[in-house]
Amino acid sequence: MSAHAAINRGNRLLPWLARKILRAIGDPPIRLVLPDGTEVTASDGPPVAWLRVDDRSTLLRLVVNPDLNFGDAYAAGRIKVEGDLLEFLKAVYPAMSAASKSASSFRRAVIRPLRQMRCNTRRASRHNVHHHYDLSNDFYRLWLDDEMLYTCAYFPDPAMTLEQAQLAKMDLVCRKLWLKPGESVVEAGSGWGALALYMARHYGVTVKSFNISRRQVFYARERAKVEGLDDRVEFIDDDYRNISGRFDVFVSVGMLEHVGRRYYRQLGGVIDRCLAPDGRALMHSIGRDRPEDLSPWIKRRIFPGAYPPALSEMMDVVEPFGLSVLDVENLRLHYARTLQHWLKRFEAVVDTVRDMFDERFVRTWRLYLTGSIAAFTTGHLQLFQLLLARSGVNTVPWTRERLYRELASSLTAETWNRATY
Amino acid sequence: MSAHAAINRGNRLLPWLARKILRAIGDPPIRLVLPDGTEVTASDGPPVAWLRVDDRSTLLRLVVNPDLNFGDAYAAGRIKVEGDLLEFLKAVYPAMSAASKSASSFRRAVIRPLRQMRCNTRRASRHNVHHHYDLSNDFYRLWLDDEMLYTCAYFPDPAMTLEQAQLAKMDLVCRKLWLKPGESVVEAGSGWGALALYMARHYGVTVKSFNISRRQVFYARERAKVEGLDDRVEFIDDDYRNISGRFDVFVSVGMLEHVGRRYYRQLGGVIDRCLAPDGRALMHSIGRDRPEDLSPWIKRRIFPGAYPPALSEMMDVVEPFGLSVLDVENLRLHYARTLQHWLKRFEAVVDTVRDMFDERFVRTWRLYLTGSIAAFTTGHLQLFQLLLARSGVNTVPWTRERLYRELASSLTAETWNRATY
Repeated sequence: MSAHAAINRGNRLLPWLARKILRAIGDPPIRLVLPDGTEVTASDGPPVAWLRVDDRSTLLRLVVNPDLNFGDAYAAGRIKVEGDLLEFLKAVYPAMSAASKSASSFRRAVIRPLRQMRCNTRRASRHNVHHHYDLSNDFYRLWLDDEMLYTCAYFPDPAMTLEQAQLAKMDLVCRKLWLKPGESVVEAGSGWGALALYMARHYGVTVKSFNISRRQVFYARERAKVEGLDDRVEFIDDDYRNISGRFDVFVSVGMLEHVGRRYYRQLGGVIDRCLAPDGRALMHSIGRDRPEDLSPWIKRRIFPGAYPPALSEMMDVVEPFGLSVLDVENLRLHYARTLQHWLKRFEAVVDTVRDMFDERFVRTWRLYLTGSIAAFTTGHLQLFQLLLARSGVNTVPWTRERLYRELASSLTAETWNRATY
Repeated sequence: MSAHAAINRGNRLLPWLARKILRAIGDPPIRLVLPDGTEVTASDGPPVAWLRVDDRSTLLRLVVNPDLNFGDAYAAGRIKVEGDLLEFLKAVYPAMSAASKSASSFRRAVIRPLRQMRCNTRRASRHNVHHHYDLSNDFYRLWLDDEMLYTCAYFPDPAMTLEQAQLAKMDLVCRKLWLKPGESVVEAGSGWGALALYMARHYGVTVKSFNISRRQVFYARERAKVEGLDDRVEFIDDDYRNISGRFDVFVSVGMLEHVGRRYYRQLGGVIDRCLAPDGRALMHSIGRDRPEDLSPWIKRRIFPGAYPPALSEMMDVVEPFGLSVLDVENLRLHYARTLQHWLKRFEAVVDTVRDMFDERFVRTWRLYLTGSIAAFTTGHLQLFQLLLARSGVNTVPWTRERLYRELASSLTAETWNRATY
């Protein structure tokens, strides 16, 4: 029986395919509405959402590769989610996660490593980063906070504004790193420069910040000039692997996700090479509770070459190099909250975004942001902040108490006012 | 040339052997004083100590296996350290560590795993634990704090007394675990019962505590009765692998060191099996900055079957089981301070100890305690506290602030007074 013949068998085939799809994504409590209006469900309980698939070829594509084709079909409007998209995704993630646990060891041992080959060379990394971060500074300015931070914020109080929480994040990072005036910092991954400038402005350090997103580097250099900080903060258009010199502090917020498993040892070697004997290093990265592939759709359409590592995998950056883990904090719920802010702001300017790009772009980004909220809320993704020093360095603080004792006082009126303009 | 002939070549051979020994332990800044009074040194700088070896056979044994035979020869008094034993060991540790980095991959891939086979079965574990913890309750009472805690204390202020710091440690553990009145706790490894009793007394929880040291269990049960807590704290003479039931909290302070690499997955399975859906788990363990064997002498004479894991190795307890790391704190310097207190108290009662055992025992324990101070001070050993929950559980605190905000207030006058009687 040919595929064509099968498709034409109509009424009996489509529900069978629908059940196959539901099984592949772990039988979540949703209803699939077929082109002819038939509803297919995998569980008896009330559905959290209805997934309307308007044509048979989309349904077939979902059977072949639901992970990848769901996103594309949603972006193209060939799938509609009736009900709450977030609730739908929150239902799907744990179910998919349970299904993926049964991934074969062949897949884990062979397919995954092969996929990660040649993804994150210097050349490929530049291409990958360009794909996402060079989209348009104007676009990101529409919905990020005033400081243009595109990484997990820190909400000591969940009711904080996004601007407040991003300042609190930068200050937490500076405090964990125990920055002292006059120290030198090297940053791997600048974003639009906010953290480097914050460190120089509030902690009196000098910063060399490496980034391979041209548009971000231009933007950050401009800001440094305007703020008169360009004598203390240098934004360098280059790969982290080319960092040279010695620094008191190494910091990397939201870059490890783009490094790729194969290059962790190289990154560890960079930290080892550039860190002063008494230096501190902080890595802030999306991660996993266990090694797992990134969604193929996110990897193809949003973050090419990206991989959020489990802690065991992150240790490849640390353990071969005589570095010592002082502190690990999981800020997962803070990222869910950050993303809620981003999605809300995004939806508030969605007409402008549609004018800048098109409807497919809007739907792609809606799915990516909503899916990320779902992933952090359900524990599908984590956010790890690691503080490191060289093995056996005894000039580190004895406790973390000062991180909290000083928090309220350091975010002075001036800082807070900045946060609410 | 036979070995016997070689030994008789005397003056030229001995310095050659001495240099070989120094090289094997990484050329630390010490002087080896040979039986004939010749001094051999590996470095030009001033020595931190003189190592006097009184006979040739001891020297030969050091050549064959310095890791193991140094400890035995020191304990037997066949080696004397002139100068400060701690400074000597602090000089030797980093040098040995550098030397061990060049251990062959064959050793790492084959020898180490082989050595760890069959070390930590239920039967072997009972034997191993008996060797150390069943020595004599009276002996440990001589120099431990009043609560008889034989694990790393927590010194929010380094000037605290040991009693204060042990209470602060127990309170930090309870606070990290977010204990609430009426909750159920299962403990793997009770020691003499202090933590289980503290939890019941100050946090209103019920505790089932598993331990395979008979003497400790008897002692702890007696204490529970005397304090009228035996209706809420049950000390069970059984292996952690036999834990059954469901609990809000899993806690294990100072036991993972005795579990052995091969059994981490089994331990993870126990946590997974016994933890309630919203439960929290805490593991407190000596660890490493990278995978490395324990000193053969410590393993043979002090802690049979012990292995302090690197964080990457600890993840075997966590990642296969849908558990999530919320927090890791490295308390290395707190263990160095704890051990300083123990050594000082040990030396204060050393005559009593000699009467209870003998001179070899005294020298063995002096070397073990001093060596442990050196290991934690130089970063040869770490102390990791890991806080875990199930993946995706959102009832966990957002920040760690409350750990510090409440610390001063929770250790009330009554608690502090207990600490200073």
